Amino acid sequence: MTINYFWQLDRHPVGHAFVDALSLRTETLAPLRPGEVRIRADWLSMDSGTRMWMSPRTDGYQPPLPLGSKMVGLALGRVVESRDPRFEDGTLVRGFGQWATYSTMLPDTAGMVALDESVADPREHIGALGMNGWTALVGVREVAAVKPGEWLAVSAAAGATGSLACQIGHNLGARVIGIAGGPEKRQWLLDELGCDVAIDYRNEDVAAVLAGIDGGVNAYFDNVGGPLLDAMLPNMAHYGRVAICGLVAGYAADKPLPGPARFDQILMRRLRVEGFFIPDFLHRGPELSEQLRAWLDAGRLAMRFDETVGLENVLDAYGRMLSGGNIGKVIVRLAP
Amino acid sequence: MTINYFWQLDRHPVGHAFVDALSLRTETLAPLRPGEVRIRADWLSMDSGTRMWMSPRTDGYQPPLPLGSKMVGLALGRVVESRDPRFEDGTLVRGFGQWATYSTMLPDTAGMVALDESVADPREHIGALGMNGWTALVGVREVAAVKPGEWLAVSAAAGATGSLACQIGHNLGARVIGIAGGPEKRQWLLDELGCDVAIDYRNEDVAAVLAGIDGGVNAYFDNVGGPLLDAMLPNMAHYGRVAICGLVAGYAADKPLPGPARFDQILMRRLRVEGFFIPDFLHRGPELSEQLRAWLDAGRLAMRFDETVGLENVLDAYGRMLSGGNIGKVIVRLAP
Repeated sequence: MTINYFWQLDRHPVGHAFVDALSLRTETLAPLRPGEVRIRADWLSMDSGTRMWMSPRTDGYQPPLPLGSKMVGLALGRVVESRDPRFEDGTLVRGFGQWATYSTMLPDTAGMVALDESVADPREHIGALGMNGWTALVGVREVAAVKPGEWLAVSAAAGATGSLACQIGHNLGARVIGIAGGPEKRQWLLDELGCDVAIDYRNEDVAAVLAGIDGGVNAYFDNVGGPLLDAMLPNMAHYGRVAICGLVAGYAADKPLPGPARFDQILMRRLRVEGFFIPDFLHRGPELSEQLRAWLDAGRLAMRFDETVGLENVLDAYGRMLSGGNIGKVIVRLAP
Repeated sequence: MTINYFWQLDRHPVGHAFVDALSLRTETLAPLRPGEVRIRADWLSMDSGTRMWMSPRTDGYQPPLPLGSKMVGLALGRVVESRDPRFEDGTLVRGFGQWATYSTMLPDTAGMVALDESVADPREHIGALGMNGWTALVGVREVAAVKPGEWLAVSAAAGATGSLACQIGHNLGARVIGIAGGPEKRQWLLDELGCDVAIDYRNEDVAAVLAGIDGGVNAYFDNVGGPLLDAMLPNMAHYGRVAICGLVAGYAADKPLPGPARFDQILMRRLRVEGFFIPDFLHRGPELSEQLRAWLDAGRLAMRFDETVGLENVLDAYGRMLSGGNIGKVIVRLAP
């Protein structure tokens, strides 16, 4: 009998107060049902989007997770048991599993894929080659549709997706404006991510810096919503595009945040504002990964990891990610 | 010496209180300068977009009109004097002129075009074949990108642009939801405009009706913004498109209205919200007019006119249009 440790959602958290909302529990692993695959997780990916699943709100892009469920999250690890012939024992895979030592998944529902073992750092499969990478690539190249020489702004630019969006914008020939909180992140954007302009929103007047951008901002990759979006809209170029990748500013709220005060600028500047959601693009994963892998191999794209060790420290890591205490991608290493 | 009567912008109006803001004046017509063309207006077009020009706000899509200027507006009439060889005396033309008996224009700046005299009702040149028609066609077919069988919703559906948007949606095979104020307009939408569903927003719960739309609203042609947009967003289908044609709810305000409270739905439903502005499409006028003319000739598209007689009654007509007291297109007939 194998023991599984897992985090259970006991109640809906208020803001970032997860301590009373989730509890670390144990169970004896049940036998697999037909079609299921079980992995032992080497790493868990900490993603802001999953915060919405903890909420009782039914108006999000995912239904709320029922109380008493195991908390869900993206996991990277090797198959230890399988009732799906496509996934043999020992295969390195990624999929939507649980915050647990063992994740049990239905591969199609979980978006499970077998991974290329030739990637030097396997963590890049939940880094530059994972959903953060796909999100950044689709958002920058297709939704924000940035063209060479244009100005691309990125919010939460020191985070997992944002840091890739900056690098991808740079690789596509855009001039990149990274927005993040604090001088350390700001410096990193300039030194390592290819940003032409970096704004520390905690210590600088974002709107004033944006007002100085020659010709206005052509494309905005937004992870945040809220006040940064308000600062951005009146400083967009005509026919600018806003890719709404996330609205982190509102995820922890009990109700939606108000819309941007300068919504009128969508008309005045003939902007296109478009929400997108990367699970809609999973079928394009191989094609997207090919481009990302080419940049990774050329040294033009990489994730910086903020790694925490131990399942018992998941809540610390998750809260740090949501409050922007991290630089790069927050992951939790479980094994050994 | 010919006398010209014109409306002058004396101060910025507050809300719809135009009486103290504009005055009817006279002048002796000055000789034309090189390149200018003068017309005697038969009709003036009353358009909500010009309300912004009266405002001191500098963040709109047009710079504010300087105080002391003649009020600008679209005029339809015949050339009486010309220093541009493309426009001979007697030619029927349309262009951005003034609220005046005589409009003096630089043809290229004013978007002046000579008109097809074979159209039975020349008013259709500021009706179905004019900018309202172009706006409705571009907005419905290209920005909202409605497909046959989809649900198209139209706000201000009994107005000039909205009534054409409903007919065009119907002609393109969409199922059309028209939203307007009052039972008379509602009935007209159903009886004459090909709407499958009509909502009287003054007497019905818009959100409740929209919640019953099978599969959600795929495309929304919005003239209004404000509370109707708030009602719409959570009732859109995934991947829905919102064409922001106007934000009439905010034009009379001294500052921008707040953005939609349900802005988060842009992400949750992966919506595309796009502002557009028909002067950007003037170069496509001939191609757009061809499609509109075909529908007009086939009896599948027409403008209903709300006609007031006399330049002295312009402010009444304009105010009625802005407050939604009209059905169809508000125009002012000046001649004879």
